[in-house]
Amino acid sequence: MKVRVHVMLKTGVLDPQGEAVRHALGALGFEGVSSVRQGKVIELELAEGTSDETIGEMCEKLLANTVIESYRIEHI
Amino acid sequence: MKVRVHVMLKTGVLDPQGEAVRHALGALGFEGVSSVRQGKVIELELAEGTSDETIGEMCEKLLANTVIESYRIEHI
Repeated sequence: MKVRVHVMLKTGVLDPQGEAVRHALGALGFEGVSSVRQGKVIELELAEGTSDETIGEMCEKLLANTVIESYRIEHI
Repeated sequence: MKVRVHVMLKTGVLDPQGEAVRHALGALGFEGVSSVRQGKVIELELAEGTSDETIGEMCEKLLANTVIESYRIEHI
């Protein structure tokens, strides 16, 4: 089974990488870009029947820093 | 309007970051993880009516390195 985990910085947490992208887009002449947030996405190929609970544990323990990041599990 | 851009390494391109995650999950005792690919996701807040063509240009020029990465645009 294939699973996609989205990890984004929580709202309110400063995102310097996103800010840099916003500035760079402006410098390249793209107008109207009011906000950019950058996160990561991890695609996992797991054994059939792996529970959402186990995947959540993977996120809590390794994939996301839950102090500043939130995660979302998507089955694909 | 809000747009999400997914950037992933193309199939066949070595993904050392994903490999590192796979090893780490194994070391943490999670079994059955056969493959991990890591990519990035960029959420953009754009002016209403920004065309997909313009967004594609942003990807080609800045957000993705199209030699090794592919991108996907998702409207949210």
